[in-house]
Amino acid sequence: MPRTAETASYRLNHVMLRVKDPKISLAFYQDILGMDLIDTHEASDFTLYFLAYQHQKGVPRGEREAVLELTHNHGTENDSSFSYHNGNQEPKGFGHLCVSVDDIEKACARFEDKGVKFQKKLTDGKMKNIAFILDPDNYWIEIISFAKPQ
Amino acid sequence: MPRTAETASYRLNHVMLRVKDPKISLAFYQDILGMDLIDTHEASDFTLYFLAYQHQKGVPRGEREAVLELTHNHGTENDSSFSYHNGNQEPKGFGHLCVSVDDIEKACARFEDKGVKFQKKLTDGKMKNIAFILDPDNYWIEIISFAKPQ
Repeated sequence: MPRTAETASYRLNHVMLRVKDPKISLAFYQDILGMDLIDTHEASDFTLYFLAYQHQKGVPRGEREAVLELTHNHGTENDSSFSYHNGNQEPKGFGHLCVSVDDIEKACARFEDKGVKFQKKLTDGKMKNIAFILDPDNYWIEIISFAKPQ
Repeated sequence: MPRTAETASYRLNHVMLRVKDPKISLAFYQDILGMDLIDTHEASDFTLYFLAYQHQKGVPRGEREAVLELTHNHGTENDSSFSYHNGNQEPKGFGHLCVSVDDIEKACARFEDKGVKFQKKLTDGKMKNIAFILDPDNYWIEIISFAKPQ
Protein backbone atom coordinates (compact mmCIF):
# COMPACT_ATOMS: atom_id res chain seq x y z
CA MET A 1 0.00 0.00 0.00
CA PRO A 2 1.25 3.49 -0.77
CA ARG A 3 1.60 5.78 2.23
CA THR A 4 -1.31 7.91 1.08
CA ALA A 5 -3.75 7.69 -1.80
CA GLU A 6 -2.64 11.15 -2.84
CA THR A 7 0.93 10.01 -3.48
CA ALA A 8 0.15 6.57 -4.90
CA SER A 9 1.09 7.62 -8.42
CA TYR A 10 4.38 9.29 -7.51
CA ARG A 11 7.63 8.02 -9.03
CA LEU A 12 11.23 9.09 -8.63
CA ASN A 13 11.53 9.86 -12.32
CA HIS A 14 15.04 11.17 -12.75
CA VAL A 15 18.15 12.79 -11.38
CA MET A 16 19.84 15.64 -13.25
CA LEU A 17 23.57 16.26 -13.42
CA ARG A 18 25.32 18.94 -15.44
CA VAL A 19 28.09 17.66 -17.71
CA LYS A 20 30.88 19.53 -19.45
CA ASP A 21 31.11 17.52 -22.68
CA PRO A 22 28.15 15.37 -23.73
CA LYS A 23 30.13 13.34 -26.26
CA ILE A 24 32.44 12.11 -23.54
CA SER A 25 29.63 11.65 -21.01
CA LEU A 26 27.35 9.81 -23.42
CA ALA A 27 30.18 7.46 -24.35
CA PHE A 28 30.69 6.75 -20.67
CA TYR A 29 27.05 6.18 -19.73
CA GLN A 30 26.24 4.22 -22.88
CA ASP A 31 29.37 2.18 -23.52
CA ILE A 32 30.77 1.73 -20.02
CA LEU A 33 27.58 1.66 -17.94
CA GLY A 34 25.30 0.26 -20.63
CA MET A 35 22.50 2.83 -20.46
CA ASP A 36 20.39 3.77 -23.47
CA LEU A 37 19.78 7.27 -24.70
CA ILE A 38 15.99 7.45 -24.62
CA ASP A 39 15.39 11.10 -25.42
CA THR A 40 17.06 14.42 -26.09
CA HIS A 41 15.81 17.97 -25.86
CA GLU A 42 17.70 20.72 -27.64
CA ALA A 43 17.26 24.34 -26.61
CA SER A 44 19.09 27.42 -27.86
CA ASP A 45 21.83 27.32 -25.26
CA PHE A 46 21.61 23.88 -23.68
CA THR A 47 20.79 20.29 -24.56
CA LEU A 48 19.28 17.64 -22.30
CA TYR A 49 20.10 13.96 -22.69
CA PHE A 50 17.91 11.36 -20.98
CA LEU A 51 19.36 7.91 -20.33
CA ALA A 52 17.84 4.80 -18.77
CA TYR A 53 18.34 1.09 -18.62
CA GLN A 54 16.69 -0.78 -21.43
CA HIS A 55 14.66 -3.12 -19.22
CA GLN A 56 12.27 -0.21 -18.68
CA LYS A 57 11.47 -0.15 -22.38
CA GLY A 58 7.73 -0.01 -22.89
CA VAL A 59 7.14 1.90 -19.67
CA PRO A 60 5.90 5.39 -20.63
CA ARG A 61 8.64 7.89 -19.87
CA GLY A 62 6.59 9.83 -17.36
CA GLU A 63 6.07 6.67 -15.33
CA ARG A 64 9.65 5.51 -15.48
CA GLU A 65 12.02 5.72 -12.60
CA ALA A 66 15.77 6.07 -12.43
CA VAL A 67 16.24 8.09 -15.59
CA LEU A 68 19.48 10.05 -15.73
CA GLU A 69 19.21 13.53 -17.22
CA LEU A 70 22.49 15.06 -18.36
CA THR A 71 22.41 18.80 -18.98
CA HIS A 72 24.95 20.28 -21.37
CA ASN A 73 25.25 24.05 -21.33
CA HIS A 74 26.67 24.72 -24.76
CA GLY A 75 30.28 25.81 -24.89
CA THR A 76 31.60 24.32 -21.65
CA GLU A 77 33.28 21.56 -23.64
CA ASN A 78 35.56 24.12 -25.30
CA ASP A 79 36.76 25.76 -22.08
CA SER A 80 39.79 23.85 -20.85
CA SER A 81 39.58 25.44 -17.39
CA PHE A 82 35.88 24.62 -16.92
CA SER A 83 34.73 21.90 -14.55
CA TYR A 84 31.63 20.99 -12.57
CA HIS A 85 31.54 20.38 -8.82
CA ASN A 86 30.87 16.79 -7.80
CA GLY A 87 29.57 17.60 -4.32
CA ASN A 88 32.17 15.60 -2.42
CA GLN A 89 34.55 18.42 -1.65
CA GLU A 90 33.41 21.63 0.05
CA PRO A 91 30.77 22.85 -0.35
CA LYS A 92 29.35 19.34 0.00
CA GLY A 93 25.85 18.22 -0.91
CA PHE A 94 25.12 15.65 -3.61
CA GLY A 95 27.10 12.48 -2.97
CA HIS A 96 26.86 9.89 -5.71
CA LEU A 97 24.83 7.76 -8.05
CA CYS A 98 24.90 4.00 -7.55
CA VAL A 99 24.76 1.27 -10.16
CA SER A 100 24.08 -2.27 -9.01
CA VAL A 101 25.50 -5.20 -10.97
CA ASP A 102 25.23 -8.96 -10.77
CA ASP A 103 28.95 -9.71 -10.63
CA ILE A 104 30.95 -6.88 -9.08
CA GLU A 105 34.38 -8.48 -9.55
CA LYS A 106 33.71 -8.92 -13.23
CA ALA A 107 32.22 -5.44 -13.57
CA CYS A 108 35.21 -3.78 -11.90
CA ALA A 109 37.67 -5.79 -14.00
CA ARG A 110 35.82 -4.61 -17.09
CA PHE A 111 35.92 -0.98 -15.91
CA GLU A 112 39.68 -1.31 -15.39
CA ASP A 113 40.12 -2.77 -18.86
CA LYS A 114 38.27 0.21 -20.29
CA GLY A 115 40.42 2.72 -18.43
CA VAL A 116 37.71 3.96 -16.07
CA LYS A 117 39.03 6.05 -13.16
CA PHE A 118 38.37 4.69 -9.69
CA GLN A 119 37.74 6.69 -6.54
CA LYS A 120 37.86 3.43 -4.58
CA LYS A 121 38.73 0.04 -5.94
CA LEU A 122 37.20 -3.07 -4.41
CA THR A 123 40.49 -3.81 -2.68
CA ASP A 124 40.87 -0.29 -1.20
CA GLY A 125 39.80 0.45 2.36
CA LYS A 126 37.70 -1.66 4.65
CA MET A 127 34.60 -2.19 2.55
CA LYS A 128 35.68 -4.84 0.06
CA ASN A 129 32.20 -5.27 -1.40
CA ILE A 130 31.79 -1.83 -2.95
CA ALA A 131 33.75 0.30 -5.40
CA PHE A 132 33.45 3.88 -6.56
CA ILE A 133 34.22 4.86 -10.14
CA LEU A 134 34.34 8.40 -11.53
CA ASP A 135 32.33 9.61 -14.48
CA PRO A 136 33.96 12.06 -16.95
CA ASP A 137 32.98 15.04 -14.73
CA ASN A 138 34.31 13.23 -11.65
CA TYR A 139 30.85 12.52 -10.26
CA TRP A 140 31.14 9.49 -8.01
CA ILE A 141 29.32 6.30 -9.03
CA GLU A 142 29.13 3.60 -6.42
CA ILE A 143 29.14 0.03 -7.71
CA ILE A 144 27.39 -2.59 -5.60
CA SER A 145 26.50 -6.20 -6.09
CA PHE A 146 22.93 -7.50 -6.05
CA ALA A 147 24.03 -10.13 -3.60
CA LYS A 148 25.44 -7.69 -1.07
CA PRO A 149 23.72 -4.33 -1.37
CA GLN A 150 25.44 -1.70 0.73
CA MET B 1 18.01 -5.78 -25.84
CA PRO B 2 20.62 -4.38 -23.48
CA ARG B 3 23.51 -2.58 -25.15
CA THR B 4 25.93 -5.32 -24.21
CA ALA B 5 25.54 -8.66 -22.48
CA GLU B 6 28.08 -7.48 -19.92
CA THR B 7 25.82 -4.66 -18.73
CA ALA B 8 22.49 -6.47 -19.02
CA SER B 9 22.14 -6.75 -15.25
CA TYR B 10 23.00 -3.13 -14.46
CA ARG B 11 20.49 -0.94 -12.62
CA LEU B 12 20.57 2.68 -11.50
CA ASN B 13 20.09 1.68 -7.90
CA HIS B 14 20.18 4.94 -5.98
CA VAL B 15 21.19 8.55 -5.65
CA MET B 16 22.76 9.85 -2.45
CA LEU B 17 22.22 13.29 -0.95
CA ARG B 18 23.59 14.55 2.35
CA VAL B 19 20.97 16.02 4.68
CA LYS B 20 21.36 18.21 7.74
CA ASP B 21 18.51 16.89 9.88
CA PRO B 22 17.07 13.45 9.13
CA LYS B 23 13.91 13.99 11.18
CA ILE B 24 12.94 16.92 9.00
CA SER B 25 14.06 15.23 5.77
CA LEU B 26 12.30 11.95 6.52
CA ALA B 27 9.09 13.79 7.30
CA PHE B 28 9.38 15.55 3.95
CA TYR B 29 10.17 12.48 1.82
CA GLN B 30 7.68 10.25 3.61
CA ASP B 31 4.75 12.54 4.32
CA ILE B 32 4.98 15.06 1.51
CA LEU B 33 6.43 12.92 -1.28
CA GLY B 34 5.00 9.60 -0.12
CA MET B 35 8.17 7.52 -0.14
CA ASP B 36 8.74 4.61 2.22
CA LEU B 37 11.74 4.15 4.44
CA ILE B 38 13.00 0.75 3.31
CA ASP B 39 16.26 0.48 5.22
CA THR B 40 18.63 2.28 7.54
CA HIS B 41 22.29 1.78 8.30
CA GLU B 42 23.74 3.28 11.45
CA ALA B 43 27.47 3.84 11.78
CA SER B 44 29.38 5.52 14.58
CA ASP B 45 29.29 8.99 13.08
CA PHE B 46 26.70 8.85 10.34
CA THR B 47 23.38 7.20 9.52
CA LEU B 48 22.06 6.24 6.08
CA TYR B 49 18.36 6.27 5.28
CA PHE B 50 17.10 4.50 2.16
CA LEU B 51 13.74 5.50 0.71
CA ALA B 52 11.79 4.22 -2.27
CA TYR B 53 8.30 4.12 -3.65
CA GLN B 54 6.25 1.24 -2.39
CA HIS B 55 5.34 -0.16 -5.80
CA GLN B 56 8.82 -1.65 -5.89
CA LYS B 57 8.02 -3.78 -2.86
CA GLY B 58 9.04 -7.35 -3.48
CA VAL B 59 11.91 -6.37 -5.76
CA PRO B 60 15.16 -7.30 -3.98
CA ARG B 61 16.87 -4.13 -2.86
CA GLY B 62 19.98 -4.73 -4.94
CA GLU B 63 17.85 -4.93 -8.07
CA ARG B 64 15.73 -1.92 -7.32
CA GLU B 65 16.09 1.36 -9.07
CA ALA B 66 15.41 4.91 -7.97
CA VAL B 67 16.18 4.48 -4.29
CA LEU B 68 17.02 7.70 -2.47
CA GLU B 69 19.84 7.44 0.06
CA LEU B 70 19.97 10.26 2.61
CA THR B 71 23.22 10.54 4.55
CA HIS B 72 23.15 12.19 7.93
CA ASN B 73 26.52 13.08 9.42
CA HIS B 74 25.70 13.19 13.10
CA GLY B 75 25.65 16.61 14.70
CA THR B 76 24.88 18.79 11.68
CA GLU B 77 21.30 19.15 12.90
CA ASN B 78 22.50 21.01 15.99
CA ASP B 79 24.61 23.58 14.13
CA SER B 80 22.40 26.51 13.23
CA SER B 81 24.92 27.87 10.73
CA PHE B 82 25.35 24.54 8.91
CA SER B 83 23.90 23.93 5.48
CA TYR B 84 24.53 21.73 2.48
CA HIS B 85 25.09 22.95 -1.07
CA ASN B 86 22.31 22.15 -3.52
CA GLY B 87 24.46 22.39 -6.66
CA ASN B 88 22.46 25.15 -8.32
CA GLN B 89 24.60 28.08 -7.24
CA GLU B 90 28.35 28.19 -7.85
CA PRO B 91 30.07 25.82 -7.80
CA LYS B 92 27.38 24.09 -9.87
CA GLY B 93 27.07 20.38 -10.52
CA PHE B 94 24.13 18.28 -9.33
CA GLY B 95 20.87 19.84 -10.50
CA HIS B 96 17.77 18.18 -9.15
CA LEU B 97 15.69 15.10 -8.50
CA CYS B 98 12.39 14.75 -10.32
CA VAL B 99 9.17 13.20 -9.10
CA SER B 100 6.46 12.45 -11.64
CA VAL B 101 2.81 12.55 -10.60
CA ASP B 102 -0.49 11.77 -12.27
CA ASP B 103 -2.17 15.10 -11.57
CA ILE B 104 0.30 17.96 -11.29
CA GLU B 105 -2.27 20.66 -10.46
CA LYS B 106 -3.57 18.59 -7.58
CA ALA B 107 -0.07 17.66 -6.42
CA CYS B 108 1.09 21.28 -6.38
CA ALA B 109 -2.06 22.40 -4.56
CA ARG B 110 -1.36 19.74 -1.95
CA PHE B 111 2.27 20.87 -1.60
CA GLU B 112 1.06 24.43 -1.05
CA ASP B 113 -1.42 23.29 1.58
CA LYS B 114 1.40 21.54 3.40
CA GLY B 115 3.63 24.60 3.35
CA VAL B 116 6.22 23.23 0.94
CA LYS B 117 8.61 25.86 -0.44
CA PHE B 118 8.59 26.35 -4.19
CA GLN B 119 11.52 27.27 -6.39
CA LYS B 120 9.09 27.60 -9.30
CA LYS B 121 5.34 27.34 -9.13
CA LEU B 122 3.39 26.02 -12.11
CA THR B 123 2.32 29.55 -12.91
CA ASP B 124 5.84 31.03 -12.78
CA GLY B 125 7.87 31.51 -15.95
CA LYS B 126 7.22 30.11 -19.37
CA MET B 127 6.99 26.41 -18.65
CA LYS B 128 3.53 26.03 -17.15
CA ASN B 129 3.69 22.24 -17.06
CA ILE B 130 6.50 21.83 -14.52
CA ALA B 131 7.16 23.03 -10.99
CA PHE B 132 10.17 22.90 -8.70
CA ILE B 133 9.79 22.41 -4.97
CA LEU B 134 12.57 22.57 -2.37
CA ASP B 135 13.37 19.82 0.07
CA PRO B 136 14.41 20.77 3.64
CA ASP B 137 18.07 21.19 2.53
CA ASN B 138 16.94 23.26 -0.46
CA TYR B 139 17.69 20.52 -2.97
CA TRP B 140 15.52 21.14 -6.01
CA ILE B 141 12.82 18.60 -6.85
CA GLU B 142 11.18 18.97 -10.22
CA ILE B 143 7.53 17.92 -10.41
CA ILE B 144 6.26 16.70 -13.78
CA SER B 145 3.06 15.12 -14.95
CA PHE B 146 2.87 11.67 -16.53
CA ALA B 147 0.88 13.16 -19.34
CA LYS B 148 3.46 15.78 -20.26
CA PRO B 149 6.91 14.64 -19.27
CA GLN B 150 9.43 17.43 -19.64
